[in-house]
Amino acid sequence: MDRRPINFAEKFSKFSDHWAPKIIAQMNDYHFKLVKIQGEFVWHSHADTDEVFIVIGGEMKIHLRDGEVNLRPGELFVIPRGVEHKPWAAGECKIMLVESAGTINTGDAGGPKTAADGVWV
Amino acid sequence: MDRRPINFAEKFSKFSDHWAPKIIAQMNDYHFKLVKIQGEFVWHSHADTDEVFIVIGGEMKIHLRDGEVNLRPGELFVIPRGVEHKPWAAGECKIMLVESAGTINTGDAGGPKTAADGVWV
Repeated sequence: MDRRPINFAEKFSKFSDHWAPKIIAQMNDYHFKLVKIQGEFVWHSHADTDEVFIVIGGEMKIHLRDGEVNLRPGELFVIPRGVEHKPWAAGECKIMLVESAGTINTGDAGGPKTAADGVWV
Repeated sequence: MDRRPINFAEKFSKFSDHWAPKIIAQMNDYHFKLVKIQGEFVWHSHADTDEVFIVIGGEMKIHLRDGEVNLRPGELFVIPRGVEHKPWAAGECKIMLVESAGTINTGDAGGPKTAADGVWV
């Protein structure tokens, strides 16, 4: 059994691309992923899983069809399954996602920002 | 839909007891819980779920039968299902747990440190 802790800062130092989640841990059939975001994402939803956003560094906004959520470091938000959302960040923001293994970043929307699933860092 | 972010510091300010996890969010059938710990816990394991520890403030150690893990803020560790572990902290440590809803803090061990399940903060 690997007894090294998983350090967020060390993992974030290993990649620089945006909107491309990297898996850092698995719990049962769920993945913990780190991702750097900047600018505007696409409207999308995940039909089969809730999705947890936790901000580690920077600030971000999640647009919803009926409002918006502003998130800072040390804050968490749950997007229920099926709820359309569009992440956005003015400057680079570092976040952790928790969601079912196999969840695709663009959900039902697809398109050019769709990242490969299953990439660990 | 509640559009307020869940702020860890604000939630931690609302309780002071140790070893009594408080639920802050639900994702599918999983709970995100905050807990303050200090001193020594009991050896236990969870037969049916992996358990994720994330340190928010302070430092802690997780004793394992074959070693130990030292965790600081911004670090995560997954205890696989069935693996015996004993959390410990010299000073107060603030942590977030992620595990299946209904998981009991003392797992298979029981005893006086067993906390009520299902308490939200």
